[in-house]
Amino acid sequence: MFKSLAQKPWLPWLLSAIIVILAAAVIVLLVFLKNQPPQVRGIPPMVEVSAHEPDSSIWGQNFPNQYTTLLRTEANNTRTQYGGSEPYSKLEADPHLLRLFAGYAFSIEYNEDRGHRNALTDVREIQRINEKSPATCYSCKSADNPALWEEMGMAAYDAMLFSEMTANIDEPIGCANCHEAGTMRLIVTNPALEEALEAQGKDWTTFTRQEMRTVVCANCHVEYYFAGEGKYLTFPWKNGTRIEDIEAYYETLQFTDWTHPDSQAPMIKMQHPEYEFFTASSTHYLAGVSCADCHMPYTRDGAVKFSTHDVHSPLLEPARSCGTCHTDVDYVTYRVAEIQDAVHATMMSCEDAIVEAIDSIAAAAANPAADADLIEEARRLHRAAQLRWDFIAAENSMGFHNPEEALRILANATDLARQAQVKALLAVKSQ
Amino acid sequence: MFKSLAQKPWLPWLLSAIIVILAAAVIVLLVFLKNQPPQVRGIPPMVEVSAHEPDSSIWGQNFPNQYTTLLRTEANNTRTQYGGSEPYSKLEADPHLLRLFAGYAFSIEYNEDRGHRNALTDVREIQRINEKSPATCYSCKSADNPALWEEMGMAAYDAMLFSEMTANIDEPIGCANCHEAGTMRLIVTNPALEEALEAQGKDWTTFTRQEMRTVVCANCHVEYYFAGEGKYLTFPWKNGTRIEDIEAYYETLQFTDWTHPDSQAPMIKMQHPEYEFFTASSTHYLAGVSCADCHMPYTRDGAVKFSTHDVHSPLLEPARSCGTCHTDVDYVTYRVAEIQDAVHATMMSCEDAIVEAIDSIAAAAANPAADADLIEEARRLHRAAQLRWDFIAAENSMGFHNPEEALRILANATDLARQAQVKALLAVKSQ
Repeated sequence: MFKSLAQKPWLPWLLSAIIVILAAAVIVLLVFLKNQPPQVRGIPPMVEVSAHEPDSSIWGQNFPNQYTTLLRTEANNTRTQYGGSEPYSKLEADPHLLRLFAGYAFSIEYNEDRGHRNALTDVREIQRINEKSPATCYSCKSADNPALWEEMGMAAYDAMLFSEMTANIDEPIGCANCHEAGTMRLIVTNPALEEALEAQGKDWTTFTRQEMRTVVCANCHVEYYFAGEGKYLTFPWKNGTRIEDIEAYYETLQFTDWTHPDSQAPMIKMQHPEYEFFTASSTHYLAGVSCADCHMPYTRDGAVKFSTHDVHSPLLEPARSCGTCHTDVDYVTYRVAEIQDAVHATMMSCEDAIVEAIDSIAAAAANPAADADLIEEARRLHRAAQLRWDFIAAENSMGFHNPEEALRILANATDLARQAQVKALLAVKSQ
Repeated sequence: MFKSLAQKPWLPWLLSAIIVILAAAVIVLLVFLKNQPPQVRGIPPMVEVSAHEPDSSIWGQNFPNQYTTLLRTEANNTRTQYGGSEPYSKLEADPHLLRLFAGYAFSIEYNEDRGHRNALTDVREIQRINEKSPATCYSCKSADNPALWEEMGMAAYDAMLFSEMTANIDEPIGCANCHEAGTMRLIVTNPALEEALEAQGKDWTTFTRQEMRTVVCANCHVEYYFAGEGKYLTFPWKNGTRIEDIEAYYETLQFTDWTHPDSQAPMIKMQHPEYEFFTASSTHYLAGVSCADCHMPYTRDGAVKFSTHDVHSPLLEPARSCGTCHTDVDYVTYRVAEIQDAVHATMMSCEDAIVEAIDSIAAAAANPAADADLIEEARRLHRAAQLRWDFIAAENSMGFHNPEEALRILANATDLARQAQVKALLAVKSQ
């Protein structure tokens, strides 16, 4: 053996080189295969999905992991300290809301949202919706929407009544709400989102995949209003997406959702501005984290890695959601609790302040000798305060998506509410 | 060459083994030497430093890098957006302070602090200190203190007048304020800190070195008061170090620094509670970061690594201060600016609220028919609001040491100030 090696000193080199080249080729091929969609890897055979296919079970044949985890959003409805998806009554949990939303539908029924697959059932059952409600209320509730918007246009869709649209809608939220059939690319499907981005000079088709993993959530998780008689779905983003920008937008329109029966202030209800709030220079957003990173963390099924489509609170699975970046999950969840406790306490004080402002304005208005100008000022302050409070209260993270922004806004809201109270007292005093 | 190798096939193995062993030995020895104090490494020769040596230049012969950087705190007094160490007048920068501190020495002269080596000069020149001031005012200003406290005891020290103590004090802040001579161990030198930790059941001699890199700053950077006739230096930490704990402590004592001349409220001035504020579950503190990590970042002189003793704002050197942990320094400093801007805006609104409360209370008190009980309630609220505002305003980070805590406290302070105003208005209205 050694003798033959001495005669052919190049032989081991040659053999070693061949081994290295072959091993490298095997690794390259395995990596290549691993990154191919299932059909390239042979199993299972792909079915063709037509554009805007509303039925998620068809997409699910090609993407069983994503589909089966999506289905879990129907039954998995767990409550967290300040949120989650158990449909408890917010009005029972915080009776102040009855007063704050007096005269408006949110004082009739206002529940914590359940998971995505329940959206359609729940919007049909909620007492806030009645026969006169516009079809626009279906905008965020169904995978039928992208096809309907494509077919009839959003203006015609929104001009119908909710009850008229019901016959067209069968599917709850599903694949077609965020994905392009065939390519599975993440896309903006809601025309209102596309128009709101355009109004800010943004073209979503130029966004990176990581940006899209946040932007697709803005198909629904945003502040919006129904514009004009046609109830046209509109996001108030033209001036920007901070609360002050949104307020300025609504002030220009002199927009009002309802008049508060006690203070007579013209009020605006905030919806669920998760996108606006998270993207307002929050530390996670600036660090490049997307909504999907925390709410749809990567998971494994055997050798396959995928984003779980069981969209849920990261607090239900912090090891996976937070643990991807943070080594000490106990530390992280402790910090979340501290932040949410601070935001919650500040929010409760803010509600006290707004309720007292309402009382004082009502008392002043009942006094015929009170200064009408000061009462009007107090009403404007009530409107401004409650708009800010609701931006944080309606947002589904008890401030965690952007802690400093939450506390900054609540501090301001509390100040404005107390100023409203002061003006109302001065209106009476100055008589 | 190859032939002789064939005859002695073990020779290259032997030679290689010898090379590996020698190289390992050289590395081990170099690492060992690098970690030795200078005297072991041969240069320069160590001088003996006696216990509590006040003269930092003597320590400096053994530790020239630490000493020469300490000396830089005399001339390097650069301003940052919201702090730094340029001695500008806070009263000129924010005229609200004249009103908030009316009737108290802080409305006479209140400047941004200069660097450590100027502390002694500045305390002797500030107009807040006069002939009747106690010697206690020297407690944080001189490296002479540890020896004096050891010699005469803190009670005797504090019972003297400032003017009487002057003859004993020559040295500005220096090595002896934080280090044990000989071992250079970080130690608690201020008896008030030791007693305050003991009152919480804490024994600093059991703390880790990293903990001491924060705790030694609490020799001075804390809230304190002068207890009793003996003006005994005391930290109000018995109930804890959150603002609510500190308030409860002072309430038990019915402690008051001065009576506000306009509102007649019994007021408490906060000092510079950096330690209390930073350690209240801030994200950096919980992540294990110490004061020294950011304010005395590790630096190099040739092959020697040391903590710079030119204690300064991290914003003056973010690449070194923040860059040790954060890869994107531009992102980090942008976030700092966002946070400080939010805290500053909230603080300014809070000051407006307190000033308006003072006005309203003064107006009510001038009205003989006003409800005295409501005016008293308004005064208590003024005290509570200003205590909270000052906890953040006097703290030297514009909220950055603990952003959520800053905004939580300011939101609460603003609410309380506006409630004070409301009570004062009600006192008049109810007449």
